Amino acid sequence: MRVFGVDPGSVRTGYGCVESDGTRHRLVSCGALSPPATEPFPDRLRAIHDGLLKLILAAAPDCVVIENLFHAKNVRSALTLGHARGVAMLAAVEAGRPVFEYTPAEIKVAVVGYGRAEKAQLQQMVKLLLGLDVVPTPHDAADALAIAICHAQATGGVFAAPARRAARAERSWRHVKLSAIARRQAP
Amino acid sequence: MRVFGVDPGSVRTGYGCVESDGTRHRLVSCGALSPPATEPFPDRLRAIHDGLLKLILAAAPDCVVIENLFHAKNVRSALTLGHARGVAMLAAVEAGRPVFEYTPAEIKVAVVGYGRAEKAQLQQMVKLLLGLDVVPTPHDAADALAIAICHAQATGGVFAAPARRAARAERSWRHVKLSAIARRQAP
Repeated sequence: MRVFGVDPGSVRTGYGCVESDGTRHRLVSCGALSPPATEPFPDRLRAIHDGLLKLILAAAPDCVVIENLFHAKNVRSALTLGHARGVAMLAAVEAGRPVFEYTPAEIKVAVVGYGRAEKAQLQQMVKLLLGLDVVPTPHDAADALAIAICHAQATGGVFAAPARRAARAERSWRHVKLSAIARRQAP
Repeated sequence: MRVFGVDPGSVRTGYGCVESDGTRHRLVSCGALSPPATEPFPDRLRAIHDGLLKLILAAAPDCVVIENLFHAKNVRSALTLGHARGVAMLAAVEAGRPVFEYTPAEIKVAVVGYGRAEKAQLQQMVKLLLGLDVVPTPHDAADALAIAICHAQATGGVFAAPARRAARAERSWRHVKLSAIARRQAP
């Protein structure tokens, strides 16, 4: 299964693609899109959208996975982040790929085994799981790879073309399961 | 000058196009896009994006104007709204139209003359200014028309192809001016 992870942001949008059988993962590509901050905001959105669309089409993944957020520093930053997530989702749909979402805690449980792990731990695990010599840079790329690995592990590396309702049910079930694991592993 | 206003929302996105010389305004078209709530969120975003893009290209406006928000009920609703705004902005950029933004207070000052006017007052003024028999429905369409009228009045109906910096400077200057008017007219 090939999974394309996206860590959206208005300043820098990380992406990372992995190939996986559910336990062993291989890096396909990763990087970050960072349109110049001097450009007007709408043009930056377009750069993120067009860039991601091109990358997704080139990587030809089975699905696209995006980090799901419920928290932000404040309403203003949530709005800005929402813009970037919106165009990232749009790119995935336009590329004809199903979209899955995971919360930061779910990603940490899947990759590190502990829902409150530090960012640095997450990035180290990405390096280990992909058998790399160094942590992928920029960090946004490593985060995107973590999102992709999370989905690969959650589905056991088997791509089930999602009957949408089934996918949703499976997701909420998994959410319960992951939350339970997180509680068990909390100190 | 022809102005295309957008009032973005994930449930319903209003749009309205007016032709104006800065004082007299004429309705060109208005309405709302409301993709079925049963559809997955990414597909709804695509419906909003594709719908707006088609409408903007058909209306061939000089510019697109979007409501700018700094407040929301909570972070969660700000995030969701951000998604809709993001794809709306993208549609404007893809249609090759410059994007302008106004806060709700600026829109109310320009249309009603008072920055804390009620929604109903705003909609009545839209009806009056466009010489209509009834308030355009749904309300999102009336709101989008208000946004378009705001820009038409702020620019005096003259479309200045925006050297972006100049547009930005003009905008912040106008912001000061409108704030001053708002203060003067506050009870």
